[in-house]
Amino acid sequence: MHSSIRIKTIAVLGGTGREGRGLALRWARAGYHVVIGGRDLVRAETTATTLREKLDPMTRISGALNLSAAQQADVIVLAVPFAAQLETALQVRSGLEGKVLIDVTVPLVPPKVEVAQLPGGSAVERLQAALGPEVAVVSAFQNVSAHHLADLDHAIDCDVLICADDDRAAQTAVELAEAAGLQGWRCGPLKNSLVTEGLTSLLIAINRRYKVPSAGIRITGVPTGAH
Amino acid sequence: MHSSIRIKTIAVLGGTGREGRGLALRWARAGYHVVIGGRDLVRAETTATTLREKLDPMTRISGALNLSAAQQADVIVLAVPFAAQLETALQVRSGLEGKVLIDVTVPLVPPKVEVAQLPGGSAVERLQAALGPEVAVVSAFQNVSAHHLADLDHAIDCDVLICADDDRAAQTAVELAEAAGLQGWRCGPLKNSLVTEGLTSLLIAINRRYKVPSAGIRITGVPTGAH
Repeated sequence: MHSSIRIKTIAVLGGTGREGRGLALRWARAGYHVVIGGRDLVRAETTATTLREKLDPMTRISGALNLSAAQQADVIVLAVPFAAQLETALQVRSGLEGKVLIDVTVPLVPPKVEVAQLPGGSAVERLQAALGPEVAVVSAFQNVSAHHLADLDHAIDCDVLICADDDRAAQTAVELAEAAGLQGWRCGPLKNSLVTEGLTSLLIAINRRYKVPSAGIRITGVPTGAH
Repeated sequence: MHSSIRIKTIAVLGGTGREGRGLALRWARAGYHVVIGGRDLVRAETTATTLREKLDPMTRISGALNLSAAQQADVIVLAVPFAAQLETALQVRSGLEGKVLIDVTVPLVPPKVEVAQLPGGSAVERLQAALGPEVAVVSAFQNVSAHHLADLDHAIDCDVLICADDDRAAQTAVELAEAAGLQGWRCGPLKNSLVTEGLTSLLIAINRRYKVPSAGIRITGVPTGAH
């Protein structure tokens, strides 16, 4: 797979959270410069240090406030809780101009996180509308558990479903899925993110019923050469 | 897995269509008495005969009008096009009383069938509301392609996602998934069917982009013993 942008630096906003940490860890291992973005600079730096200790000491991973992280990056990944999604993105809006934003947000509404809550469309469409067309938003990584991402010693038995209206954004997500050791699948327009966001609730329902830590999904029926 | 009802006869409404035929074929092979329901008696009978010819000549598979099929069955499977879903179910309502109805409907809206169209909730919730609480509706089988179901010589590399509010209905779908040679997963309440219905559009998007006939999905991360 080719990407139409050259990715050097990835900002992970919400990189101090579990999902963001897991993604940051894998991308840093793959050789990208990763900037952990957070609301608290000390916590962001501490997270960067903790992750570096799991990797080669020379791994390029740093901490910054969310806005600074976005400004430094070619690609920005939004991995904050649903309740903070819009606010965080709008706060760093000036650092997103002309760039690709990968939204990992799952619209879970506690306490019933095992029930898909999608009133009026997907969370990512709302985000794209708020940011405007100068930011190319792509939806991806919602279904990959932080539990698996953190475990560098095992292959992850879960695919990445990617929804985007922008081709460059979609290809960026495909590249970063592969860099994280995952298979990315282009699943149609941003509107289809309604399904991938909601799917996380179904996986949580499966976790609870079958008493497992983190069920995942795989796409079947596509020969390896067709990717 | 246990089932809380003893299933002997399954009616497949829309059993003359591709998806219905495929399911009927597999359940007949598994030993259930299958009644192909249709709007046209001759066509229903012809379909039953065609399917029987693929199996043992003594296989119990017959054709009937939709209402008669429903009346004869312990479990009714609704496999008609989205546009006919509500009308068909209401026409046979008297044959559904106290029974389990498995809804296979995918709310595809041509021509953009690769875009999830879910205005205001899932198709199956609308169906349950129209039928009332005396019919236990369960959503299942939306993501298994007719292409695979018709091919009895190969194992199907696709799972069945099951959403239900009623435990007996959910267990019935689990049993019939297994009878069709598939793994069924209980994925939470009927409301989560929004996701499984929409997922078919994502699989169609994958079929088109990667040029394959019928992509599917698998649930991962659950050891065999946990089912």
